[in-house]
Amino acid sequence: MRVREIIDTHPQPTSVDREVLLRCIEECYDCAASCTSCADACLGEDDVQDLVRCIRLCLDCADACDATGRIVIRQTTPDLGVIRAVVEACAVACRASAAECEMHAAHHEHCRICAEVCRSCAQACDDLVAALA
Amino acid sequence: MRVREIIDTHPQPTSVDREVLLRCIEECYDCAASCTSCADACLGEDDVQDLVRCIRLCLDCADACDATGRIVIRQTTPDLGVIRAVVEACAVACRASAAECEMHAAHHEHCRICAEVCRSCAQACDDLVAALA
Amino acid sequence: MRVREIIDTHPQPTSVDREVLLRCIEECYDCAASCTSCADACLGEDDVQDLVRCIRLCLDCADACDATGRIVIRQTTPDLGVIRAVVEACAVACRASAAECEMHAAHHEHCRICAEVCRSCAQACDDLVAALA
Amino acid sequence: MRVREIIDTHPQPTSVDREVLLRCIEECYDCAASCTSCADACLGEDDVQDLVRCIRLCLDCADACDATGRIVIRQTTPDLGVIRAVVEACAVACRASAAECEMHAAHHEHCRICAEVCRSCAQACDDLVAALA
Repeated sequence: MRVREIIDTHPQPTSVDREVLLRCIEECYDCAASCTSCADACLGEDDVQDLVRCIRLCLDCADACDATGRIVIRQTTPDLGVIRAVVEACAVACRASAAECEMHAAHHEHCRICAEVCRSCAQACDDLVAALA
Repeated sequence: MRVREIIDTHPQPTSVDREVLLRCIEECYDCAASCTSCADACLGEDDVQDLVRCIRLCLDCADACDATGRIVIRQTTPDLGVIRAVVEACAVACRASAAECEMHAAHHEHCRICAEVCRSCAQACDDLVAALA
Repeated sequence: MRVREIIDTHPQPTSVDREVLLRCIEECYDCAASCTSCADACLGEDDVQDLVRCIRLCLDCADACDATGRIVIRQTTPDLGVIRAVVEACAVACRASAAECEMHAAHHEHCRICAEVCRSCAQACDDLVAALA
Repeated sequence: MRVREIIDTHPQPTSVDREVLLRCIEECYDCAASCTSCADACLGEDDVQDLVRCIRLCLDCADACDATGRIVIRQTTPDLGVIRAVVEACAVACRASAAECEMHAAHHEHCRICAEVCRSCAQACDDLVAALA
Protein backbone atom coordinates (compact mmCIF):
# COMPACT_ATOMS: atom_id res chain seq x y z
CA MET A 1 0.00 0.00 0.00
CA ARG A 2 1.23 3.46 -0.88
CA VAL A 3 0.37 4.76 2.59
CA ARG A 4 3.94 3.63 3.47
CA GLU A 5 5.39 6.30 1.19
CA ILE A 6 3.07 8.96 2.59
CA ILE A 7 3.96 8.18 6.20
CA ASP A 8 7.65 8.32 5.19
CA THR A 9 7.13 12.01 4.31
CA HIS A 10 5.18 12.94 7.45
CA PRO A 11 6.52 16.13 9.07
CA GLN A 12 6.12 14.84 12.63
CA PRO A 13 6.32 11.05 12.66
CA THR A 14 5.86 9.28 15.98
CA SER A 15 8.86 7.55 17.50
CA VAL A 16 7.20 4.13 17.21
CA ASP A 17 9.22 1.49 15.32
CA ARG A 18 8.33 2.27 11.70
CA GLU A 19 8.22 -1.27 10.37
CA VAL A 20 6.01 -2.51 13.23
CA LEU A 21 3.69 0.45 12.70
CA LEU A 22 3.39 -0.02 8.94
CA ARG A 23 2.80 -3.73 9.30
CA CYS A 24 -0.06 -3.11 11.73
CA ILE A 25 -1.63 -0.57 9.35
CA GLU A 26 -1.43 -2.88 6.35
CA GLU A 27 -2.70 -5.87 8.30
CA CYS A 28 -5.69 -3.85 9.59
CA TYR A 29 -6.72 -2.79 6.08
CA ASP A 30 -6.16 -6.29 4.73
CA CYS A 31 -8.15 -7.84 7.57
CA ALA A 32 -10.99 -5.30 7.26
CA ALA A 33 -11.33 -6.22 3.58
CA SER A 34 -10.96 -9.97 4.19
CA CYS A 35 -13.57 -10.04 6.97
CA THR A 36 -16.01 -7.99 4.88
CA SER A 37 -15.48 -10.48 2.05
CA CYS A 38 -15.72 -13.61 4.24
CA ALA A 39 -18.96 -12.38 5.87
CA ASP A 40 -20.34 -11.85 2.37
CA ALA A 41 -19.14 -15.23 1.07
CA CYS A 42 -20.72 -16.93 4.13
CA LEU A 43 -23.96 -15.08 3.37
CA GLY A 44 -23.93 -16.60 -0.12
CA GLU A 45 -23.43 -20.22 1.07
CA ASP A 46 -26.23 -22.80 1.13
CA ASP A 47 -25.48 -23.50 4.79
CA VAL A 48 -25.72 -19.83 5.81
CA GLN A 49 -27.70 -20.94 8.90
CA ASP A 50 -24.53 -22.63 10.21
CA LEU A 51 -22.43 -19.57 9.49
CA VAL A 52 -24.42 -16.96 11.41
CA ARG A 53 -21.83 -16.56 14.17
CA CYS A 54 -19.04 -16.42 11.58
CA ILE A 55 -20.81 -13.60 9.73
CA ARG A 56 -21.43 -11.68 12.92
CA LEU A 57 -17.86 -11.91 14.19
CA CYS A 58 -16.40 -11.07 10.77
CA LEU A 59 -18.58 -7.93 10.62
CA ASP A 60 -17.36 -6.94 14.11
CA CYS A 61 -13.74 -7.59 13.13
CA ALA A 62 -14.06 -5.56 9.92
CA ASP A 63 -15.41 -2.59 11.90
CA ALA A 64 -12.70 -2.85 14.56
CA CYS A 65 -9.91 -3.15 11.95
CA ASP A 66 -11.30 -0.25 9.95
CA ALA A 67 -11.25 2.12 12.94
CA THR A 68 -7.88 0.82 14.12
CA GLY A 69 -6.24 1.24 10.72
CA ARG A 70 -7.37 4.87 10.54
CA ILE A 71 -6.22 5.65 14.10
CA VAL A 72 -2.83 3.95 13.76
CA ILE A 73 -2.12 5.75 10.47
CA ARG A 74 -2.28 9.14 12.21
CA GLN A 75 1.14 10.36 13.34
CA THR A 76 0.29 13.90 14.44
CA THR A 77 0.13 14.46 18.24
CA PRO A 78 -1.05 10.95 19.15
CA ASP A 79 -2.41 9.83 22.53
CA LEU A 80 -0.59 6.56 23.14
CA GLY A 81 -3.20 5.44 25.67
CA VAL A 82 -5.90 5.65 23.01
CA ILE A 83 -3.77 3.80 20.47
CA ARG A 84 -2.91 1.04 22.93
CA ALA A 85 -6.55 0.49 23.96
CA VAL A 86 -7.83 0.52 20.38
CA VAL A 87 -5.11 -1.80 19.06
CA GLU A 88 -5.59 -4.23 21.97
CA ALA A 89 -9.35 -4.34 21.33
CA CYS A 90 -8.66 -4.96 17.65
CA ALA A 91 -6.51 -7.97 18.51
CA VAL A 92 -9.39 -9.37 20.62
CA ALA A 93 -11.81 -8.95 17.71
CA CYS A 94 -9.34 -10.56 15.27
CA ARG A 95 -8.84 -13.60 17.52
CA ALA A 96 -12.59 -14.11 18.02
CA SER A 97 -13.15 -13.95 14.29
CA ALA A 98 -10.18 -16.23 13.59
CA ALA A 99 -11.37 -18.86 16.08
CA GLU A 100 -14.83 -18.96 14.53
CA CYS A 101 -13.53 -19.00 10.94
CA GLU A 102 -11.24 -21.90 11.84
CA MET A 103 -14.30 -23.98 12.78
CA HIS A 104 -15.50 -23.70 9.17
CA ALA A 105 -12.10 -23.85 7.45
CA ALA A 106 -12.48 -27.47 6.37
CA HIS A 107 -15.71 -26.72 4.49
CA HIS A 108 -15.18 -23.18 3.28
CA GLU A 109 -11.92 -22.04 1.77
CA HIS A 110 -12.84 -18.36 2.38
CA CYS A 111 -13.05 -19.10 6.11
CA ARG A 112 -9.66 -20.83 6.04
CA ILE A 113 -8.00 -17.86 4.36
CA CYS A 114 -9.83 -15.30 6.49
CA ALA A 115 -8.74 -17.07 9.68
CA GLU A 116 -5.11 -16.77 8.56
CA VAL A 117 -5.51 -13.06 7.84
CA CYS A 118 -7.17 -12.48 11.23
CA ARG A 119 -4.40 -14.36 13.09
CA SER A 120 -1.77 -12.37 11.22
CA CYS A 121 -3.50 -9.07 12.04
CA ALA A 122 -3.84 -10.02 15.72
CA GLN A 123 -0.09 -10.68 15.82
CA ALA A 124 0.68 -7.35 14.15
CA CYS A 125 -1.53 -5.62 16.75
CA ASP A 126 0.26 -7.40 19.60
CA ASP A 127 3.61 -6.38 18.13
CA LEU A 128 2.54 -2.75 17.93
CA VAL A 129 1.31 -2.76 21.54
CA ALA A 130 4.67 -4.22 22.59
CA ALA A 131 6.50 -1.52 20.62
CA LEU A 132 4.46 1.21 22.35
CA ALA A 133 5.49 0.06 25.82
CA MET B 1 -33.11 7.05 17.08
CA ARG B 2 -35.40 4.45 15.57
CA VAL B 3 -32.80 1.73 16.08
CA ARG B 4 -34.46 1.32 19.51
CA GLU B 5 -37.63 0.06 17.88
CA ILE B 6 -35.69 -2.30 15.62
CA ILE B 7 -33.74 -3.83 18.49
CA ASP B 8 -37.05 -4.28 20.35
CA THR B 9 -38.15 -6.65 17.57
CA HIS B 10 -34.88 -8.64 17.39
CA PRO B 11 -35.53 -12.41 17.38
CA GLN B 12 -32.57 -13.18 19.66
CA PRO B 13 -31.79 -10.19 21.85
CA THR B 14 -28.84 -10.45 24.22
CA SER B 15 -29.53 -10.57 27.94
CA VAL B 16 -27.73 -7.26 28.52
CA ASP B 17 -29.81 -4.59 30.30
CA ARG B 18 -31.77 -3.06 27.43
CA GLU B 19 -31.74 0.55 28.58
CA VAL B 20 -27.98 0.53 29.24
CA LEU B 21 -27.39 -1.04 25.84
CA LEU B 22 -29.57 1.45 23.96
CA ARG B 23 -28.04 4.40 25.75
CA CYS B 24 -24.53 3.27 24.75
CA ILE B 25 -25.61 2.87 21.12
CA GLU B 26 -27.21 6.30 20.94
CA GLU B 27 -24.29 7.97 22.71
CA CYS B 28 -21.80 6.35 20.30
CA TYR B 29 -23.66 7.63 17.23
CA ASP B 30 -24.12 11.06 18.80
CA CYS B 31 -20.45 11.24 19.77
CA ALA B 32 -19.26 10.03 16.35
CA ALA B 33 -21.24 12.85 14.72
CA SER B 34 -20.21 15.46 17.32
CA CYS B 35 -16.51 14.64 17.04
CA THR B 36 -16.66 14.69 13.22
CA SER B 37 -18.31 18.09 13.46
CA CYS B 38 -15.96 19.50 16.11
CA ALA B 39 -12.87 18.41 14.13
CA ASP B 40 -14.34 20.18 11.12
CA ALA B 41 -15.25 23.32 13.08
CA CYS B 42 -11.71 23.42 14.53
CA LEU B 43 -10.35 23.11 10.98
CA GLY B 44 -12.33 26.21 10.02
CA GLU B 45 -11.04 28.37 12.91
CA ASP B 46 -8.42 31.10 12.46
CA ASP B 47 -6.35 29.51 15.23
CA VAL B 48 -6.36 26.06 13.62
CA GLN B 49 -2.66 25.76 14.50
CA ASP B 50 -3.62 25.67 18.20
CA LEU B 51 -6.31 23.07 17.57
CA VAL B 52 -4.23 20.40 15.83
CA ARG B 53 -4.32 17.99 18.76
CA CYS B 54 -8.05 18.60 19.21
CA ILE B 55 -8.70 17.75 15.55
CA ARG B 56 -6.60 14.61 15.75
CA LEU B 57 -8.23 13.27 18.91
CA CYS B 58 -11.73 14.09 17.66
CA LEU B 59 -11.02 12.15 14.45
CA ASP B 60 -9.81 9.18 16.53
CA CYS B 61 -12.85 9.38 18.78
CA ALA B 62 -15.25 9.54 15.82
CA ASP B 63 -13.68 6.40 14.34
CA ALA B 64 -13.77 4.53 17.66
CA CYS B 65 -17.41 5.51 18.33
CA ASP B 66 -18.44 4.59 14.80
CA ALA B 67 -17.06 1.05 15.11
CA THR B 68 -18.34 0.65 18.67
CA GLY B 69 -21.86 1.76 17.77
CA ARG B 70 -22.03 -0.81 14.97
CA ILE B 71 -20.66 -3.63 17.15
CA VAL B 72 -22.89 -2.88 20.17
CA ILE B 73 -26.00 -2.73 17.96
CA ARG B 74 -25.54 -6.36 16.92
CA GLN B 75 -27.50 -8.79 19.13
CA THR B 76 -27.01 -12.02 17.21
CA THR B 77 -24.49 -14.48 18.76
CA PRO B 78 -22.23 -11.86 20.34
CA ASP B 79 -18.76 -12.44 21.78
CA LEU B 80 -18.85 -10.56 25.08
CA GLY B 81 -15.05 -10.41 25.25
CA VAL B 82 -14.97 -8.49 21.96
CA ILE B 83 -17.73 -6.15 23.07
CA ARG B 84 -16.04 -5.46 26.40
CA ALA B 85 -12.65 -4.69 24.79
CA VAL B 86 -14.13 -2.47 22.08
CA VAL B 87 -16.38 -0.53 24.47
CA GLU B 88 -13.53 -0.03 26.95
CA ALA B 89 -11.28 1.28 24.17
CA CYS B 90 -14.05 3.61 23.06
CA ALA B 91 -14.30 5.07 26.57
CA VAL B 92 -10.54 5.75 26.50
CA ALA B 93 -10.86 7.55 23.15
CA CYS B 94 -13.85 9.57 24.41
CA ARG B 95 -12.00 10.70 27.55
CA ALA B 96 -8.89 11.74 25.58
CA SER B 97 -11.00 13.76 23.19
CA ALA B 98 -13.04 15.28 26.06
CA ALA B 99 -9.92 16.33 27.96
CA GLU B 100 -8.47 18.07 24.89
CA CYS B 101 -11.77 19.73 23.93
CA GLU B 102 -12.11 21.05 27.49
CA MET B 103 -8.83 22.95 27.07
CA HIS B 104 -10.45 24.95 24.25
CA ALA B 105 -13.96 25.19 25.71
CA ALA B 106 -13.56 28.79 26.85
CA HIS B 107 -12.70 29.95 23.33
CA HIS B 108 -14.71 27.62 21.14
CA GLU B 109 -18.30 26.74 21.92
CA HIS B 110 -18.11 23.67 19.64
CA CYS B 111 -15.30 22.29 21.81
CA ARG B 112 -17.34 22.93 24.98
CA ILE B 113 -20.34 21.04 23.61
CA CYS B 114 -18.22 18.25 22.10
CA ALA B 115 -16.46 17.71 25.45
CA GLU B 116 -19.85 17.21 27.11
CA VAL B 117 -20.92 14.70 24.48
CA CYS B 118 -17.61 12.80 24.82
CA ARG B 119 -17.91 12.65 28.64
CA SER B 120 -21.47 11.43 28.35
CA CYS B 121 -20.49 8.73 25.83
CA ALA B 122 -17.57 7.59 28.02
CA GLN B 123 -20.00 7.18 30.93
CA ALA B 124 -22.45 5.21 28.78
CA CYS B 125 -19.56 2.94 27.73
CA ASP B 126 -18.51 2.43 31.36
CA ASP B 127 -22.10 1.59 32.28
CA LEU B 128 -22.33 -0.98 29.49
CA VAL B 129 -19.06 -2.61 30.53
CA ALA B 130 -20.39 -2.80 34.11
CA ALA B 131 -23.62 -4.36 32.84
CA LEU B 132 -21.66 -7.02 30.91
CA ALA B 133 -19.85 -8.23 34.02
CA MET C 1 -28.46 14.71 18.15
CA ARG C 2 -26.18 17.31 19.66
CA VAL C 3 -24.32 17.73 16.36
CA ARG C 4 -26.99 20.38 15.63
CA GLU C 5 -25.62 22.58 18.39
CA ILE C 6 -22.05 22.08 17.22
CA ILE C 7 -22.84 23.01 13.62
CA ASP C 8 -24.64 26.11 14.95
CA THR C 9 -21.28 27.31 16.33
CA HIS C 10 -19.24 26.54 13.20
CA PRO C 11 -17.01 29.50 12.21
CA GLN C 12 -17.62 29.05 8.47
CA PRO C 13 -20.98 27.40 7.89
CA THR C 14 -22.01 26.65 4.32
CA SER C 15 -24.86 28.62 2.81
CA VAL C 16 -27.00 25.49 2.46
CA ASP C 17 -30.45 25.68 4.10
CA ARG C 18 -29.67 24.75 7.70
CA GLU C 19 -32.77 22.73 8.49
CA VAL C 20 -32.48 20.66 5.29
CA LEU C 21 -28.82 20.01 6.04
CA LEU C 22 -29.40 18.97 9.65
CA ARG C 23 -32.28 16.72 8.72
CA CYS C 24 -30.10 14.92 6.15
CA ILE C 25 -27.34 14.43 8.74
CA GLU C 26 -29.69 13.05 11.37
CA GLU C 27 -31.46 10.78 8.90
CA CYS C 28 -28.12 9.38 7.66
CA TYR C 29 -26.99 8.48 11.19
CA ASP C 30 -30.41 7.06 12.05
CA CYS C 31 -30.50 5.02 8.84
CA ALA C 32 -26.92 3.75 9.29
CA ALA C 33 -27.87 2.47 12.75
CA SER C 34 -31.23 1.06 11.61
CA CYS C 35 -29.75 -0.81 8.65
CA THR C 36 -26.94 -2.24 10.80
CA SER C 37 -29.59 -3.40 13.25
CA CYS C 38 -31.98 -4.79 10.62
CA ALA C 39 -29.18 -6.76 8.92
CA ASP C 40 -28.32 -8.21 12.33
CA ALA C 41 -31.95 -9.00 13.20
CA CYS C 42 -32.37 -10.72 9.81
CA LEU C 43 -29.24 -12.75 10.53
CA GLY C 44 -30.86 -13.98 13.75
CA GLU C 45 -34.12 -15.11 12.09
CA ASP C 46 -34.94 -18.76 11.41
CA ASP C 47 -35.61 -17.90 7.78
CA VAL C 48 -32.24 -16.19 7.28
CA GLN C 49 -31.94 -17.97 3.91
CA ASP C 50 -34.88 -15.86 2.64
CA LEU C 51 -33.33 -12.68 3.99
CA VAL C 52 -29.92 -12.85 2.30
CA ARG C 53 -30.63 -10.01 -0.12
CA CYS C 54 -32.12 -7.91 2.67
CA ILE C 55 -28.97 -8.36 4.78
CA ARG C 56 -26.72 -7.48 1.88
CA LEU C 57 -28.60 -4.33 0.88
CA CYS C 58 -28.89 -3.18 4.51
CA LEU C 59 -25.12 -3.56 4.92
CA ASP C 60 -24.57 -1.52 1.74
CA CYS C 61 -27.01 1.14 2.92
CA ALA C 62 -25.39 1.38 6.37
CA ASP C 63 -21.98 1.94 4.73
CA ALA C 64 -23.33 4.55 2.31
CA CYS C 65 -25.19 6.42 5.08
CA ASP C 66 -22.18 6.33 7.37
CA ALA C 67 -19.91 7.97 4.78
CA THR C 68 -22.60 10.43 3.70
CA GLY C 69 -23.35 11.52 7.27
CA ARG C 70 -19.66 12.29 7.86
CA ILE C 71 -19.27 14.18 4.58
CA VAL C 72 -22.45 16.23 4.96
CA ILE C 73 -21.54 17.23 8.53
CA ARG C 74 -18.38 18.98 7.30
CA GLN C 75 -18.94 22.70 6.66
CA THR C 76 -15.36 23.83 6.05
CA THR C 77 -14.46 24.53 2.37
CA PRO C 78 -16.83 21.97 0.85
CA ASP C 79 -16.83 20.75 -2.76
CA LEU C 80 -20.52 20.83 -3.69
CA GLY C 81 -19.95 18.40 -6.59
CA VAL C 82 -18.66 15.79 -4.16
CA ILE C 83 -21.54 16.35 -1.75
CA ARG C 84 -24.13 16.12 -4.52
CA ALA C 85 -22.70 12.87 -5.93
CA VAL C 86 -22.34 11.24 -2.51
CA VAL C 87 -25.83 12.26 -1.31
CA GLU C 88 -27.41 11.12 -4.58
CA ALA C 89 -25.68 7.73 -4.29
CA CYS C 90 -26.88 7.47 -0.69
CA ALA C 91 -30.49 8.00 -1.81
CA VAL C 92 -30.08 5.16 -4.33
CA ALA C 93 -28.75 2.84 -1.61
CA CYS C 94 -31.58 3.82 0.76
CA ARG C 95 -34.26 3.13 -1.86
CA ALA C 96 -32.79 -0.28 -2.76
CA SER C 97 -32.69 -1.25 0.89
CA ALA C 98 -36.22 0.11 1.51
CA ALA C 99 -37.66 -1.82 -1.45
CA GLU C 100 -36.16 -5.09 -0.23
CA CYS C 101 -37.15 -4.52 3.42
CA GLU C 102 -40.72 -3.81 2.30
CA MET C 103 -40.92 -7.31 0.79
CA HIS C 104 -40.38 -8.75 4.29
CA ALA C 105 -42.36 -6.15 6.25
CA ALA C 106 -45.39 -8.38 6.74
CA HIS C 107 -43.30 -11.09 8.41
CA HIS C 108 -40.61 -9.10 10.17
CA GLU C 109 -41.37 -5.96 12.14
CA HIS C 110 -37.70 -4.89 11.99
CA CYS C 111 -37.89 -4.87 8.19
CA ARG C 112 -41.09 -2.80 8.30
CA ILE C 113 -39.50 -0.17 10.54
CA CYS C 114 -36.18 -0.20 8.65
CA ALA C 115 -37.99 0.36 5.34
CA GLU C 116 -39.63 3.46 6.82
CA VAL C 117 -36.29 4.81 8.04
CA CYS C 118 -34.68 4.16 4.63
CA ARG C 119 -37.53 5.93 2.78
CA SER C 120 -37.27 8.87 5.14
CA CYS C 121 -33.49 9.10 4.67
CA ALA C 122 -33.83 8.89 0.87
CA GLN C 123 -36.27 11.82 1.00
CA ALA C 124 -33.90 13.84 3.21
CA CYS C 125 -31.10 13.16 0.71
CA ASP C 126 -33.30 14.27 -2.21
CA ASP C 127 -34.20 17.44 -0.33
CA LEU C 128 -30.56 18.25 0.32
CA VAL C 129 -29.64 17.71 -3.33
CA ALA C 130 -32.49 20.06 -4.31
CA ALA C 131 -31.23 22.64 -1.80
CA LEU C 132 -27.71 22.47 -3.28
CA ALA C 133 -28.91 23.35 -6.77
CA MET D 1 -4.37 -7.88 -0.45
CA ARG D 2 -5.62 -11.34 0.44
CA VAL D 3 -9.22 -10.33 -0.24
CA ARG D 4 -8.44 -11.46 -3.82
CA GLU D 5 -8.10 -15.05 -2.67
CA ILE D 6 -11.29 -14.85 -0.63
CA ILE D 7 -13.34 -13.47 -3.52
CA ASP D 8 -11.91 -16.27 -5.70
CA THR D 9 -13.64 -18.79 -3.41
CA HIS D 10 -17.01 -16.95 -3.24
CA PRO D 11 -19.95 -19.33 -3.86
CA GLN D 12 -21.90 -16.81 -5.97
CA PRO D 13 -19.51 -14.36 -7.61
CA THR D 14 -20.99 -11.60 -9.72
CA SER D 15 -20.42 -11.71 -13.46
CA VAL D 16 -18.41 -8.47 -13.39
CA ASP D 17 -14.92 -8.69 -14.94
CA ARG D 18 -12.87 -10.05 -12.05
CA GLU D 19 -9.68 -8.13 -12.63
CA VAL D 20 -11.50 -4.80 -12.97
CA LEU D 21 -13.45 -5.56 -9.79
CA LEU D 22 -10.38 -6.52 -7.77
CA ARG D 23 -8.45 -3.51 -8.95
CA CYS D 24 -11.26 -1.18 -7.84
CA ILE D 25 -11.39 -2.83 -4.40
CA GLU D 26 -7.64 -2.57 -3.88
CA GLU D 27 -7.50 1.00 -5.10
CA CYS D 28 -10.34 2.02 -2.76
CA TYR D 29 -8.59 0.57 0.29
CA ASP D 30 -5.26 2.06 -0.78
CA CYS D 31 -6.84 5.45 -1.39
CA ALA D 32 -8.78 5.39 1.90
CA ALA D 33 -5.51 4.80 3.74
CA SER D 34 -3.53 7.34 1.68
CA CYS D 35 -6.11 10.10 2.15
CA THR D 36 -6.33 9.43 5.89
CA SER D 37 -2.56 9.68 6.02
CA CYS D 38 -2.29 12.79 3.82
CA ALA D 39 -4.94 14.63 5.88
CA ASP D 40 -2.93 13.76 8.98
CA ALA D 41 0.41 14.79 7.44
CA CYS D 42 -1.15 18.11 6.34
CA LEU D 43 -2.40 18.61 9.91
CA GLY D 44 1.18 18.25 11.14
CA GLU D 45 2.64 20.84 8.72
CA ASP D 46 3.64 24.35 9.79
CA ASP D 47 1.47 25.77 7.01
CA VAL D 48 -1.64 23.86 8.07
CA GLN D 49 -3.67 27.05 7.49
CA ASP D 50 -2.94 26.72 3.76
CA LEU D 51 -3.89 23.05 3.76
CA VAL D 52 -7.38 23.29 5.26
CA ARG D 53 -9.16 22.48 2.01
CA CYS D 54 -6.74 19.63 1.32
CA ILE D 55 -7.46 18.12 4.74
CA ARG D 56 -11.20 18.44 4.27
CA LEU D 57 -11.27 16.87 0.80
CA CYS D 58 -8.92 14.05 1.86
CA LEU D 59 -11.23 13.25 4.79
CA ASP D 60 -14.22 13.16 2.42
CA CYS D 61 -12.34 10.96 -0.04
CA ALA D 62 -11.26 8.53 2.70
CA ASP D 63 -14.88 8.15 3.83
CA ALA D 64 -16.15 7.66 0.27
CA CYS D 65 -13.43 5.10 -0.55
CA ASP D 66 -14.02 3.23 2.69
CA ALA D 67 -17.74 2.77 1.98
CA THR D 68 -17.13 2.01 -1.70
CA GLY D 69 -14.49 -0.63 -0.94
CA ARG D 70 -16.88 -2.45 1.40
CA ILE D 71 -19.80 -2.30 -1.04
CA VAL D 72 -17.78 -3.41 -4.09
CA ILE D 73 -16.29 -6.35 -2.16
CA ARG D 74 -19.74 -7.86 -1.63
CA GLN D 75 -20.66 -10.40 -4.35
CA THR D 76 -23.87 -11.83 -2.90
CA THR D 77 -27.11 -10.62 -4.57
CA PRO D 78 -25.85 -7.16 -5.54
CA ASP D 79 -27.96 -4.24 -6.74
CA LEU D 80 -25.99 -2.92 -9.72
CA GLY D 81 -27.74 0.45 -9.53
CA VAL D 82 -26.41 0.96 -6.01
CA ILE D 83 -22.92 -0.11 -6.98
CA ARG D 84 -22.87 2.18 -10.02
CA ALA D 85 -24.05 5.23 -8.03
CA VAL D 86 -21.64 4.62 -5.17
CA VAL D 87 -18.62 3.97 -7.42
CA GLU D 88 -19.40 7.04 -9.56
CA ALA D 89 -19.63 9.21 -6.42
CA CYS D 90 -16.34 7.77 -5.22
CA ALA D 91 -14.65 8.79 -8.48
CA VAL D 92 -15.95 12.35 -7.98
CA ALA D 93 -14.52 12.44 -4.44
CA CYS D 94 -11.18 11.04 -5.64
CA ARG D 95 -10.87 13.65 -8.41
CA ALA D 96 -11.69 16.55 -6.05
CA SER D 97 -9.09 15.34 -3.58
CA ALA D 98 -6.52 14.74 -6.33
CA ALA D 99 -7.00 18.25 -7.78
CA GLU D 100 -6.49 19.86 -4.38
CA CYS D 101 -3.49 17.68 -3.48
CA GLU D 102 -1.88 18.56 -6.81
CA MET D 103 -1.91 22.25 -5.83
CA HIS D 104 0.38 21.40 -2.90
CA ALA D 105 2.45 18.70 -4.60
CA ALA D 106 5.45 20.96 -5.16
CA HIS D 107 5.73 21.75 -1.45
CA HIS D 108 4.54 18.56 0.18
CA GLU D 109 5.63 15.15 -1.01
CA HIS D 110 2.68 13.48 0.79
CA CYS D 111 0.30 15.56 -1.33
CA ARG D 112 2.13 14.59 -4.51
CA ILE D 113 1.89 10.88 -3.71
CA CYS D 114 -1.71 11.13 -2.46
CA ALA D 115 -2.77 12.88 -5.67
CA GLU D 116 -1.37 9.97 -7.67
CA VAL D 117 -3.22 7.44 -5.55
CA CYS D 118 -6.48 9.42 -5.89
CA ARG D 119 -6.12 9.66 -9.69
CA SER D 120 -5.43 5.95 -9.89
CA CYS D 121 -8.47 5.13 -7.73
CA ALA D 122 -10.71 7.42 -9.80
CA GLN D 123 -9.60 5.55 -12.94
CA ALA D 124 -10.28 2.17 -11.32
CA CYS D 125 -13.76 3.40 -10.38
CA ASP D 126 -14.41 4.60 -13.94
CA ASP D 127 -13.26 1.23 -15.28
CA LEU D 128 -15.62 -0.63 -12.95
CA VAL D 129 -18.56 1.57 -13.95
CA ALA D 130 -17.75 0.86 -17.61
CA ALA D 131 -17.57 -2.88 -16.86
CA LEU D 132 -21.01 -2.77 -15.19
CA ALA D 133 -22.69 -1.33 -18.26
